[in-house]
Amino acid sequence: MPTLDEVSGPSRLAGPDEAISAEELQLAARNHGIPLEALRYDVTPAGLHYLLIHYDIPEVDAATHALTVGGAVERPLTVSLAELRERPRVTHQVTLECAGNGRALLHPRPVSQPWLVEAVGNAEWTGTPLAPLLRDAGLGPDAVDVVFTGADHGVERGIEQDYQRALPVADALRDEVLLAYEMNGAPLLPQHGAPLRLIVPGWYGMAHVKWLHSVEVRTEPFEGYQNAVAYRLRRDADDPGVPVTRIEPRALVRPPGFPDFMSRRRVLRPGPCTVDGRAWSGHAPVAAVEVTTDGGESWASAELDPSDGGDFAWRRWRYEWTATPGRYVLGARATDASGRTQPVEQPWNRGGFANNLVQRVEVVVPAE
Amino acid sequence: MPTLDEVSGPSRLAGPDEAISAEELQLAARNHGIPLEALRYDVTPAGLHYLLIHYDIPEVDAATHALTVGGAVERPLTVSLAELRERPRVTHQVTLECAGNGRALLHPRPVSQPWLVEAVGNAEWTGTPLAPLLRDAGLGPDAVDVVFTGADHGVERGIEQDYQRALPVADALRDEVLLAYEMNGAPLLPQHGAPLRLIVPGWYGMAHVKWLHSVEVRTEPFEGYQNAVAYRLRRDADDPGVPVTRIEPRALVRPPGFPDFMSRRRVLRPGPCTVDGRAWSGHAPVAAVEVTTDGGESWASAELDPSDGGDFAWRRWRYEWTATPGRYVLGARATDASGRTQPVEQPWNRGGFANNLVQRVEVVVPAE
Repeated sequence: MPTLDEVSGPSRLAGPDEAISAEELQLAARNHGIPLEALRYDVTPAGLHYLLIHYDIPEVDAATHALTVGGAVERPLTVSLAELRERPRVTHQVTLECAGNGRALLHPRPVSQPWLVEAVGNAEWTGTPLAPLLRDAGLGPDAVDVVFTGADHGVERGIEQDYQRALPVADALRDEVLLAYEMNGAPLLPQHGAPLRLIVPGWYGMAHVKWLHSVEVRTEPFEGYQNAVAYRLRRDADDPGVPVTRIEPRALVRPPGFPDFMSRRRVLRPGPCTVDGRAWSGHAPVAAVEVTTDGGESWASAELDPSDGGDFAWRRWRYEWTATPGRYVLGARATDASGRTQPVEQPWNRGGFANNLVQRVEVVVPAE
Repeated sequence: MPTLDEVSGPSRLAGPDEAISAEELQLAARNHGIPLEALRYDVTPAGLHYLLIHYDIPEVDAATHALTVGGAVERPLTVSLAELRERPRVTHQVTLECAGNGRALLHPRPVSQPWLVEAVGNAEWTGTPLAPLLRDAGLGPDAVDVVFTGADHGVERGIEQDYQRALPVADALRDEVLLAYEMNGAPLLPQHGAPLRLIVPGWYGMAHVKWLHSVEVRTEPFEGYQNAVAYRLRRDADDPGVPVTRIEPRALVRPPGFPDFMSRRRVLRPGPCTVDGRAWSGHAPVAAVEVTTDGGESWASAELDPSDGGDFAWRRWRYEWTATPGRYVLGARATDASGRTQPVEQPWNRGGFANNLVQRVEVVVPAE
């Protein structure tokens, strides 16, 4: 008789010459990144923000949806969406990035969602802060983890589950953590967690649980699949590893000129050109961005625009370049105020997480 | 000195054992299909509709954007977006499908955007009919083709171009062809052609020119790249082929049960299950849908919902199934009122266009 195991294989690395598999292509066809030219928008429009959905987009009725707050609390609560909307309303502009961004460029390549560099977006998220709700429920001093459960259901590496992630209690109580019901001033779209999701500014995407229906306080560390098995930085399959948490600094170049349809290589006319893009970090504010036009041989300082989007949003940078006929490889390298900077050699781990290797944008400037 | 040719290769077929290339993955990461569970929505929400962008999303200012109507007309016109909005306003629900849908499943595989089966969506498009505007401009009896030019610019197979497509004049004058400025009741999103695009109900996506700024009447057949070279059904590279035009009938199954993250194979509990999905054709109304649960060995009739979306929208179908433990391959086969029906063997052509091979959805029903 058939079992769950036959739909689900173990995690693996691609072989040295193994190209993208049919399974990776299936994921790439469903999930999508930001088209890099959309780095022009301060706030990413609907449909251009990156999207990673573990299972299916679930069907959740906003009219009857309620959030339960339970576990190790004095007064378990059930709050409707209408009641959440009556609580204090806050908007944060937040850059979200998938923890697996860059994975498909790694050698060897972990076989999973095959991101290149485009798994990012910057949106305005509106909701009510989580911490006051936890305090209303009576969070005890022995709380360790807060577990968030979404309505999306599936199998992963043989384990049937609702998508579920925990935050350490100190992180869950940060002022800026939101129960969000709007994105860019409109009710959440189905694929972004309608009608309610968690927003944890500064953390990779796996923490921002979509289709959220349950918040549960625990007095012991949470050992669920997404925390204990999936999102960990491991050297190899036997390494217990450490949790994936905050976003490493990264800058992306908005590719100048125009593309070839198939190769996506860029053609740029000779002459003065403002090269620009965005930079972000979940650890500390972006402090500097450097630009290369020779694939990392030399670097020059970019100018940073004011951080109008607030502490959790990406920041625009720009660099004045005079393009002369030739072939170039553009890239940008962000450094944050904590001293973290992007590597020019790949930071490798078995899941392909938190990899912030500098981007390579191939540009041809033809003779006129 | 560098030239355009070095960013752009000739069209090619993948080798017999060649997996998805880095270039195909780049396209899959930018463009995206509809997640198949979103077949549940009558009208596809923003961000879930399929998207294929040849070059970059261009930056077009809606406040100053104007449409020119010129070429072989008596009175060339320039109309602002505000003026277009003052003209008669019409909304059509229209199913759009990419002409290359299904390409990545072909043997041999044409190397281009690697769609599986998900390059489709059904939206409400609002705008003003094109024909009265052409008549206002004074379309002559010698008109042959009408050429539509968008603002997206790039290189394709060595040819630098703005995206440009022509319709035969009789097709351009059909009542239902729209100059559309809204999608699903909101202004067009940048990636769907903001602020203005063409909508040609019944035709594959390549005809619905986005970021439209010019309409030009010609008295000779248009020989531009996208008509004369790209979108043609050819047996081989030397075959001049025939143009890709209307959408072939297709039905898709909304995959039942829940998925495995990586393999996307489905798990379904034993018991009664309504299998449903959507069916459409650009040639004639959908007349019948049949369902298979054994990979095409046997077929049963599905029930068709009323065609509430109108003549150009997909239609929901459903089939009552009792799932017992085992392994199944689900599929659906649409037939339209013109007698066209979906093939169970691949219809192959060198560009991988208009391929409406029946879908295969692998489902495991475990013993309880």
